[in-house]
Amino acid sequence: MIYFTFDPRPDLKEDLLKSFPNEEFVFSRTVENTDLARAEIIVTYGEDLTEAHIATAKNLQWIMVASAGIEKMPNAAIAARGIPVTNVRGIHKVPMAESVLMHILAHYHSLPQIYQYETKHEWKRNLKQRELFGSTAVILGPGAIGGEIGRLLKGFNVTTIGCNRSGRDAAYMDKMVRFDELTSVLPAADIVVSVLPDTEETKHLMTAQHFDAMKDTALFMNFGRGSLVETNVLIEALTENKIGAAVCDVFETEPLPVDSPLWDLPNMTVSPHVSSHSSRYLERSFAIFKPNLEKWRSGNHEELENFVDLTLGY
Amino acid sequence: MIYFTFDPRPDLKEDLLKSFPNEEFVFSRTVENTDLARAEIIVTYGEDLTEAHIATAKNLQWIMVASAGIEKMPNAAIAARGIPVTNVRGIHKVPMAESVLMHILAHYHSLPQIYQYETKHEWKRNLKQRELFGSTAVILGPGAIGGEIGRLLKGFNVTTIGCNRSGRDAAYMDKMVRFDELTSVLPAADIVVSVLPDTEETKHLMTAQHFDAMKDTALFMNFGRGSLVETNVLIEALTENKIGAAVCDVFETEPLPVDSPLWDLPNMTVSPHVSSHSSRYLERSFAIFKPNLEKWRSGNHEELENFVDLTLGY
Repeated sequence: MIYFTFDPRPDLKEDLLKSFPNEEFVFSRTVENTDLARAEIIVTYGEDLTEAHIATAKNLQWIMVASAGIEKMPNAAIAARGIPVTNVRGIHKVPMAESVLMHILAHYHSLPQIYQYETKHEWKRNLKQRELFGSTAVILGPGAIGGEIGRLLKGFNVTTIGCNRSGRDAAYMDKMVRFDELTSVLPAADIVVSVLPDTEETKHLMTAQHFDAMKDTALFMNFGRGSLVETNVLIEALTENKIGAAVCDVFETEPLPVDSPLWDLPNMTVSPHVSSHSSRYLERSFAIFKPNLEKWRSGNHEELENFVDLTLGY
Repeated sequence: MIYFTFDPRPDLKEDLLKSFPNEEFVFSRTVENTDLARAEIIVTYGEDLTEAHIATAKNLQWIMVASAGIEKMPNAAIAARGIPVTNVRGIHKVPMAESVLMHILAHYHSLPQIYQYETKHEWKRNLKQRELFGSTAVILGPGAIGGEIGRLLKGFNVTTIGCNRSGRDAAYMDKMVRFDELTSVLPAADIVVSVLPDTEETKHLMTAQHFDAMKDTALFMNFGRGSLVETNVLIEALTENKIGAAVCDVFETEPLPVDSPLWDLPNMTVSPHVSSHSSRYLERSFAIFKPNLEKWRSGNHEELENFVDLTLGY
């Protein structure tokens, strides 16, 4: 039995039932123990499973996470049972890369100012507009999403420097460095954008020293996970004008507390963790799930797309 | 003598004097008759010359316009004397295409709403975000600027339909139609963006019938000249929700009057004719002017870049 811990859109559900007429599907909005005990496959957004659930799910053979982050999963318990986990990494790449490009262009061409003038009926043309053309971006995490950001940036004639654990070549990156070499490339960066997951290695990876090394005009963007940088370190970088501006879609505490100083900093843009949102999200998740389910039922367990390494966390 | 009717940035002036040590340059902020009478070449932004000036400029052989539009020039008087005119078309393409992409992405990913939530310290994730990916854009005027917009849109997997007088193939356009075929492609368009110049043919080219033919979700953008569409026709299209939204950088009357209803329409974005602005504007103009001046002095008059056809107006 295939157990969904959420209730998908009717048209997507119908399509699934039609595509797999011999499967038993249970669609639930909560995690029920009776159903759980029978579940061979669990499909979840990755935020609702506990260690106790894993213990109850005696027949569980595969977990499909319809999101990218697995940091809220009982990963130790899952790994101990040797249950494979797949996610939908890659499906965020289109909306996220579009969002990142939007915020970059808005920064370079003074869009907040244009909107403010409009509110006041002011025809003022003294905006500080700069071209994105010819600038340099450091991309922390040049995987599926980071690569898509890089691909779009190359179209705008931006030099791309990727940064990850290994420093090995990655698509759409003109150059690659390892995490421990980050400081050496920051002085050249006009834009530093992170799409890194939350792992032991990425936690507080960005330090005050990194912000010190950046141009005072640089744009810092966090679109991965809030754990990348301590909130106070970010606030200090912005208030001391170590950098020009920041746009964050993720924060150490979410929702961002209503009294956080970040809301009102003039050089800070707060986005409420929406950059991966898209009307095509579930549609794309199902487009990954369906062929995976076929492979699974044919016994080709090794060939599933998007296995997650529970020890690495992505 | 080469007569500038404006005073360029010191570093650009110095570079010019160094590059052409045998030329006499006059840099003025106004048009003075004594200087004018001696001028062989006039360099102007194209908004300060009158018929009387042309009559006074007895030695005038070439006018270089450091802008794209020539609608404020005494074109009949210039044509009667057979004086060639060149402009700097193409140098707007980078900032304008970046601006257009910015506004498109802001529309698709609800950026105005994100900024409003931030002002109120509201962590709301119920934004209506759509992907640009897979949409269709009609580009009115697929020349240097329109082609650059098309090139960037192709990177976002957008289908591009160009529209101009001839309907002949143009770069980065998946399909081309003539002006008189515009209505036939509008029902397919998610975005309609114009970068057309102001000519007899483009004046009020967009009619109420065109807006009727568009999707009620379509985004209309005018980044060419305000004469393309009557203000009332645009207001009607927006208030009657014939289209989803509009972003205009140009208007029939500029500055846009403080009491224009356009300022406050919720589905309208007013940009104060700034999309071509760039800190690299004059730098790029000079990069066109210098080789042109060399060709001119070598007698290769026919080989100048960017001749303007005064009868066509661009």
